[in-house]
Amino acid sequence: MAPSKAPTYLTGDATATSEFLDKFDTFLIDCDGVLWSGDHIFPGIKETIELLRSKGKRTVFVTNNSTKSRAEYLKKFESKGISCSVDDVFGSSYSAAIYINRILALPAPKNKVFVLGEAGIETELESESVPFIGGTDPAFRRDITPADFEGLADGSALDPDVGVVLAGLDFHVNYLKLATAYQYLLRGARFLATNTDSTLPMNHTFFPGAGSCLIPLVNMTKEQPLALGKPSQAMMDAVEGKFHLDRSRTCMIGDRLDTDIQFGVEGKLGGTLAVLTGVSKKADWEAESAVAVPAYYVDKLSDLRGPGQ
Amino acid sequence: MAPSKAPTYLTGDATATSEFLDKFDTFLIDCDGVLWSGDHIFPGIKETIELLRSKGKRTVFVTNNSTKSRAEYLKKFESKGISCSVDDVFGSSYSAAIYINRILALPAPKNKVFVLGEAGIETELESESVPFIGGTDPAFRRDITPADFEGLADGSALDPDVGVVLAGLDFHVNYLKLATAYQYLLRGARFLATNTDSTLPMNHTFFPGAGSCLIPLVNMTKEQPLALGKPSQAMMDAVEGKFHLDRSRTCMIGDRLDTDIQFGVEGKLGGTLAVLTGVSKKADWEAESAVAVPAYYVDKLSDLRGPGQ
Repeated sequence: MAPSKAPTYLTGDATATSEFLDKFDTFLIDCDGVLWSGDHIFPGIKETIELLRSKGKRTVFVTNNSTKSRAEYLKKFESKGISCSVDDVFGSSYSAAIYINRILALPAPKNKVFVLGEAGIETELESESVPFIGGTDPAFRRDITPADFEGLADGSALDPDVGVVLAGLDFHVNYLKLATAYQYLLRGARFLATNTDSTLPMNHTFFPGAGSCLIPLVNMTKEQPLALGKPSQAMMDAVEGKFHLDRSRTCMIGDRLDTDIQFGVEGKLGGTLAVLTGVSKKADWEAESAVAVPAYYVDKLSDLRGPGQ
Repeated sequence: MAPSKAPTYLTGDATATSEFLDKFDTFLIDCDGVLWSGDHIFPGIKETIELLRSKGKRTVFVTNNSTKSRAEYLKKFESKGISCSVDDVFGSSYSAAIYINRILALPAPKNKVFVLGEAGIETELESESVPFIGGTDPAFRRDITPADFEGLADGSALDPDVGVVLAGLDFHVNYLKLATAYQYLLRGARFLATNTDSTLPMNHTFFPGAGSCLIPLVNMTKEQPLALGKPSQAMMDAVEGKFHLDRSRTCMIGDRLDTDIQFGVEGKLGGTLAVLTGVSKKADWEAESAVAVPAYYVDKLSDLRGPGQ
């Protein structure tokens, strides 16, 4: 699946960089570890995005972060001085909402979603007019009671219209939500996830990621969710459907082999570009066990501006 | 590991039952699924326990439930009319406390335990004079804050004396506790569990079990905890140490092949007896993939009283 040849190193090579840029019309760009780390934007990012756009390239930001809606992402871009529209951003919550509404397309009223996650998921479900319960509802942000055990067991505490459990990063995960989601899954609800990243990089360490919030459900049901974030090709299909991509003229840029690069390789894009400002290192794709190998790599995204910039 | 011959069926066979009883001095007896289901005690249990004791047998109740202390178990036995002393009960919380204090025996003050679990664990740690934090402390039963992310990342929110994370069933599991436990594990704390049952049978359905409360930590660290409940032989060693068992004259009675029967078989006890009033069925040990095969079985524990009782 991965190309057999070693990736082309573009940093400091003006000719190779120019040839690289000429090959593509659209760049799908991961955010964390590529543009910034947490709240710290890397130097020269704004200018690099502007350079790509000045050459007529389309830039689409593709992120697995499910806690923010596209509108919230927009605010972050604007705060960093990068002009952006909501349509330039494609998050895993939006991907999940599109999948549920347009592809899964369960007949109403049995299309209700039980959300294990934060407001970003809710906003995107609303944007696709998908009904949901759970999420940030205070009714689920509390301790489980004996009445809950009874109501979950006999079904009286459950909404018969729930046909999907959608799980993502939930800073308010608790026993009641997990027990409720599990009962919906036992009763046949589809099991979807925005993404399954086990950890969330923050403050130079790691915290529980979406995958670790929902893993109790996997442990109980022995079933893996369909993940709608990278590297899921459901997300690629949604991106392609929205932007009418020519995959051969599209390049995925990211820092993680097991999400970004694999996403681009499996999606049969014209190219993939790894940056070394995030999680994966050169040794990772040189390893025998590499899940994917990029076609190109740079030390940092701003190296695309060429030597001396 | 499992005996190659089919188990002997004792129900309705007075001679075989009598020979069975003569072989053992001590019976280790699982509780849920053997004596009762939730709050419902099975018929004839009280009389069966009294029969065993009248024949001079020692009865020890061995349970993986970590939410109750031995003292709380005692109350349950008494409410069901079964006389019992605290020393007749051996729970996974107690097993964990003994393991930490007597076997792990970390030098103070670096022997503090971060508890992901309920009061049963705390009570048993106190009984062994093991210092702990977390558990039912309201300081951890709340939402995570930006200050928590910073304090966990720079270590200022962590107790430098924590050398062990002990996880069990926690009805109050949340993001803050999981993030905190994970930071202790990243910093080298030992990872222990009272048990790793994925589900908790209750109200004729299933709820998240201890194993599902702690699985986020496994997912993040890629490390399995040392489980101190059945079938862990650490629990058998603790039981043997306390009761000075002659293993060849001891029989484990339980309803689950993958906890009770495996526990007895791997512990090289003189015998194991399966009852069919709980999780495992006859087809389970007849299957090629059976994790353990009992030496004897009965339909229900009270069948040990003999035919016509």
